[in-house]
Amino acid sequence: MSAKAKRRARSGCPVSTSLEILGDRWSLLIIRDLMVRGHHTFKEFQESGERIASNILTDRLRSLEAAGIITAEVEKDDRRRMSYRLTEKGIDLAPVLLELLIWGGNHEQTETPSAAVAEMEKNRDEILAETRRRWKARDRTPLIPRFDSEVVARNLSRKTR
Amino acid sequence: MSAKAKRRARSGCPVSTSLEILGDRWSLLIIRDLMVRGHHTFKEFQESGERIASNILTDRLRSLEAAGIITAEVEKDDRRRMSYRLTEKGIDLAPVLLELLIWGGNHEQTETPSAAVAEMEKNRDEILAETRRRWKARDRTPLIPRFDSEVVARNLSRKTR
Repeated sequence: MSAKAKRRARSGCPVSTSLEILGDRWSLLIIRDLMVRGHHTFKEFQESGERIASNILTDRLRSLEAAGIITAEVEKDDRRRMSYRLTEKGIDLAPVLLELLIWGGNHEQTETPSAAVAEMEKNRDEILAETRRRWKARDRTPLIPRFDSEVVARNLSRKTR
Repeated sequence: MSAKAKRRARSGCPVSTSLEILGDRWSLLIIRDLMVRGHHTFKEFQESGERIASNILTDRLRSLEAAGIITAEVEKDDRRRMSYRLTEKGIDLAPVLLELLIWGGNHEQTETPSAAVAEMEKNRDEILAETRRRWKARDRTPLIPRFDSEVVARNLSRKTR
């Protein structure tokens, strides 16, 4: 576990504290891109399906770095570019993301077929373990590139081959 | 499962869709108050530790109702007052809240002792089952009134007596 951050919180409730850091429409999407899509550059985040505005993206990357959720370093092959990576505190958000995915998939119209959501509900532990394994191994192969059941199944089975 | 809502989403990703509904600093706190604190009136939400402004509270209650997450009905004993209740779609957010609680408890300074967070991590399934049982039974006894480990333990053991 990373060192606990010190900040002036609006209350002592951990749900409230989490929302002070993550409670907006964009932060968890950047974390999703890093976690399961293999994205790691400003350009990739910007070209993600939701078309985040560049000033908002800049702001959110700064906040996530300040909160100790991501780190930024200069890319080895292109020194003008920053490469972002989740910290351990960041990868610990995998269960939050997975539950948001399952809830949205079950209750809203999305591109994820119901069968794929049910599959993820059933395989929570396996998905979380594989997400963490890839983060640890710095393996950027997308785990859930387009929330497509076949792709998820293929990606999950690949590791056991 | 409730009927899937139809709305114009910014992308087909269920995480993104969930955040379009819940991605702010307040919505999930109102859901927390309903889910584990036994709050159900405007006044109770307003007097929760985070001191939400009344115009924001009015706005969020309307959005949550429009999204099918809460219902509002006139109170039986006081017909000037509205009583709010989570729908099935709303109670399905319990795992999201629990994961935000665990993450915040592990990584930020909060009033929840580390031992209590560890206890909740270990008893995820039991806590979720008890949360749902109370919702179904319309039992408003607070499950986690102040995120205090002793209170949680006492409340959980009470049901098995």
